[in-house]
Amino acid sequence: MLLGKVIGTVVATRKDERLEGVKFLIVRNVGLKADMVNGFAVAVDAVGAGIGEMVLYATGSAARQTALTKDRPADAIIMAIVDSWDLEGRIIFQKE
Amino acid sequence: MLLGKVIGTVVATRKDERLEGVKFLIVRNVGLKADMVNGFAVAVDAVGAGIGEMVLYATGSAARQTALTKDRPADAIIMAIVDSWDLEGRIIFQKE
Amino acid sequence: MLLGKVIGTVVATRKDERLEGVKFLIVRNVGLKADMVNGFAVAVDAVGAGIGEMVLYATGSAARQTALTKDRPADAIIMAIVDSWDLEGRIIFQKE
Amino acid sequence: MLLGKVIGTVVATRKDERLEGVKFLIVRNVGLKADMVNGFAVAVDAVGAGIGEMVLYATGSAARQTALTKDRPADAIIMAIVDSWDLEGRIIFQKE
Amino acid sequence: MLLGKVIGTVVATRKDERLEGVKFLIVRNVGLKADMVNGFAVAVDAVGAGIGEMVLYATGSAARQTALTKDRPADAIIMAIVDSWDLEGRIIFQKE
Repeated sequence: MLLGKVIGTVVATRKDERLEGVKFLIVRNVGLKADMVNGFAVAVDAVGAGIGEMVLYATGSAARQTALTKDRPADAIIMAIVDSWDLEGRIIFQKE
Repeated sequence: MLLGKVIGTVVATRKDERLEGVKFLIVRNVGLKADMVNGFAVAVDAVGAGIGEMVLYATGSAARQTALTKDRPADAIIMAIVDSWDLEGRIIFQKE
Repeated sequence: MLLGKVIGTVVATRKDERLEGVKFLIVRNVGLKADMVNGFAVAVDAVGAGIGEMVLYATGSAARQTALTKDRPADAIIMAIVDSWDLEGRIIFQKE
Repeated sequence: MLLGKVIGTVVATRKDERLEGVKFLIVRNVGLKADMVNGFAVAVDAVGAGIGEMVLYATGSAARQTALTKDRPADAIIMAIVDSWDLEGRIIFQKE
Repeated sequence: MLLGKVIGTVVATRKDERLEGVKFLIVRNVGLKADMVNGFAVAVDAVGAGIGEMVLYATGSAARQTALTKDRPADAIIMAIVDSWDLEGRIIFQKE
């Protein structure tokens, strides 16, 4: 999984029928120090993430292992909202 | 998923039999500011996208999760046409 | 899928038993202007491609979605021979 | 698989229900000389790895081939703790 | 698939139970001219490859399409030992 920050939303009314009711969020990649780094993905939201939240997202077939996304043509999913992470015992990020 | 813009078409009459009737579009990658960036893919069109349209495309096994592409040797699919996206509440792209 | 040009052949007599009878071709990546770019793959040939031919190849599990490659340990397949492609209506490549 | 060193932990209480009880570790990529290199992943721990341990991790659908991760939306897994590796007969890394 | 040269071995006694009896080899990526290039992988050996041998390896779910690796958490496999390859008719590599 990768660390990311939710920074936006994509609206798409014309889409494959299996994607009805799915919400697409824009996730910017985040580095170990909680800094924004290059790279982003548009991911299906499986956990009700909001703009500005730090999340974990998975790509590839993992994106279809939730009740919401089974058998749907999606390749990225937000599967967790991050509370905190530490590096060698030191807290780097803590959700407010 | 990635953001892309449809910029061309690939014609291929000699192909694996499971790909009969499938349309291949060339999708150029697009950045968060709706700018063209490096990278492109040839993707199967599942939504009737036209040249110049902004789309979402998925890669890997996700490409076979539509009625059109099930069990076919394809690894990229256009699964949605983008109406708009926003970054932290500000509209970045809006379909005309 | 990616655009590629067939530039060579790999011979491998000692291989996993499920790969008997499979032909491995070397495919060099090709850019939108039909120029050679960095990157290559060794792909299973599903369409009888010859040296010098422009092809489409798919990677990942897509490589096992043909009668030839089902259940075989292959991760790249040539699934189409390209006749032509255009960018915004202008022909870029046309097979002779 | 890739070589990595476990350097941290991610806490996420709000997550897809199929991820209950799963532990997320931060794995920094390691080069052939046991040096830290660019790149990291957040991976599910299948072997009880601790901070500072050298591990092997697998990505993609491989991440769901353990009793712990079957059918869960995860795309990276620590599946082995490294005791040692050698390059052309010379020991490069040896667990203390 | 990618071309690689076997340059080392990884020993890991503590691992997921489904990986018992599997041998992990370090494969350095090789370019079209048989030169060492950046990048390496730790791959399961399905063909009895030895140190110094030129091989083909596959990544992703392809790594589980052998009798040895079915349902195991592995994402890279050596599935062939290379005898030779040619580029446009000229032999580039030939096994001694």
